[in-house]
Amino acid sequence: MELIGTLSQLVNALRSREIRRRVAVVCPNDPHTEYVIIRSLREEIAEYLLVTDVAHREAAYHIRSASPDFVRIYETATPDEAAAYAVQLVRMGEADILMKGLINTDNLLRAVLKKEDGLLPAGSVLSHVTVAQIPLYHKLLFFSDAAVIPRPTLEQYRSMIANDIALCKKLGCEEPRIALIHCTEKINEKFPHTLSYVELKKEAEEGKFGNVFIDGPMDAKTACDKHSGEIKGLSSPVVGNADVLIFPNIESGNTFYKTLSLFGDANMAGMLTGTIAPVVVPSRSDSGNSKYYSLALACLASTQND
Amino acid sequence: MELIGTLSQLVNALRSREIRRRVAVVCPNDPHTEYVIIRSLREEIAEYLLVTDVAHREAAYHIRSASPDFVRIYETATPDEAAAYAVQLVRMGEADILMKGLINTDNLLRAVLKKEDGLLPAGSVLSHVTVAQIPLYHKLLFFSDAAVIPRPTLEQYRSMIANDIALCKKLGCEEPRIALIHCTEKINEKFPHTLSYVELKKEAEEGKFGNVFIDGPMDAKTACDKHSGEIKGLSSPVVGNADVLIFPNIESGNTFYKTLSLFGDANMAGMLTGTIAPVVVPSRSDSGNSKYYSLALACLASTQND
Repeated sequence: MELIGTLSQLVNALRSREIRRRVAVVCPNDPHTEYVIIRSLREEIAEYLLVTDVAHREAAYHIRSASPDFVRIYETATPDEAAAYAVQLVRMGEADILMKGLINTDNLLRAVLKKEDGLLPAGSVLSHVTVAQIPLYHKLLFFSDAAVIPRPTLEQYRSMIANDIALCKKLGCEEPRIALIHCTEKINEKFPHTLSYVELKKEAEEGKFGNVFIDGPMDAKTACDKHSGEIKGLSSPVVGNADVLIFPNIESGNTFYKTLSLFGDANMAGMLTGTIAPVVVPSRSDSGNSKYYSLALACLASTQND
Repeated sequence: MELIGTLSQLVNALRSREIRRRVAVVCPNDPHTEYVIIRSLREEIAEYLLVTDVAHREAAYHIRSASPDFVRIYETATPDEAAAYAVQLVRMGEADILMKGLINTDNLLRAVLKKEDGLLPAGSVLSHVTVAQIPLYHKLLFFSDAAVIPRPTLEQYRSMIANDIALCKKLGCEEPRIALIHCTEKINEKFPHTLSYVELKKEAEEGKFGNVFIDGPMDAKTACDKHSGEIKGLSSPVVGNADVLIFPNIESGNTFYKTLSLFGDANMAGMLTGTIAPVVVPSRSDSGNSKYYSLALACLASTQND
């Protein structure tokens, strides 16, 4: 498929395919969730299975009135039951995507991570990926992990990278350039992630990640700015031209997310991967646009590759 | 003194005082260092003690020709000896500031950190502070530590914060609002820095840091964006209006620095503190402006408070 360069192109790609993805929403009773649902119904990229606890059923019926043909409602006694039920809808193949409404993230994740009837296959790793559209960058930038994995182990790095590569390909980036982020280019045993990076680079060279370039350690500026790389005498397919940044801990990944969003005037889309279907967990302080793009990203991610 | 709101105001504040600070430069034989020296001579905010190894003396004499009255030259056999000599000039009170030219940062720091005749008083902690001028923020933003301390201990946090407060006051920010950065507001023993934050907040409330506000854990966006704080139901003098961000590790501090500089279109000034005089160690990929502002920041930091 064609390379998607912006988040609006992502929405357009979905619209041009004329496929509505089926989204199970847990507790759709807050204005942000309603905004995302109504907008995606209008843009005809999704249909909904709203799972609401009875106390908040009004909100679900209000949403359905906007587009009765594309919204079904399921009622449960409590929000936790709504989460469990929505997870079952995905497991049964009734829904392609799980989306969080007004329920505590921890409670939703508990249902997602349940061993017997959750959404995470045995041996798989749950990770978060963000796709950022940054005015001062020349293409979409993917990165992990701003939200889920505190300090990736080598095994978790492998899964995060594999999850991100799969998503890159859904957006038409066939040969992702992946930068392993640190504050310098030096490998240093005092920073154990730099030792993991050595291993990951070796595995990439052996072809274990498929058709990709992996390089690092390097800092975020070196990864995304050719000039910085030149000054340092670095050159590789990744330096200055990264598609994906992998961060060494959640504090740096989260700082990257928040700084781009606040000071870089960026639009962001994010979702959880590693699960059998994308899980959309918008952050409270995300803009309405970012929340909508997150849903659209999940819609595209849940399609089969052409 | 009046609050300084931009980095050009910082330069103007120096110029209006008509004081030239005395800067010892180690190995001033690269174009970036020469640019900073020539510009500051022209703007009359500094005079120079250039310490050069003999092999690169030409560069120093070339600089002196631009302003012979305000440039002295000292020659040593090697770059390491140049570093040691420049440190002695500061120790003897001949220079107010130490600045790095074309010498490896580790070699310069070795001279700075020498126990007997370095620049770090016993019991003091070397830390890095950046002052960022961000188009999308309403004032200068100070932060630590993008460059020196990997994972601050409680004692190191105390020193970093004290160093940053002292610098804030030099720039007329008399009651700094300090945010302790994490990815959420939750205190969690799996993230030991959040436990240090509890202690630091308590100490601030007891007045141990003087006239300041300290709050956290919170993420970088919550610290600098009132709207994000409101959505989360948070309010404190710090939320949405931070003057200082303290990061939990060098990877997050460095990521903030690089992201602001590349995608936030920010101008930055940075220096090392904790030493008996400011030490300027420009990063290779900094812009010429940032390098100049770093020198100017050190000039202001080395003045006595009014």
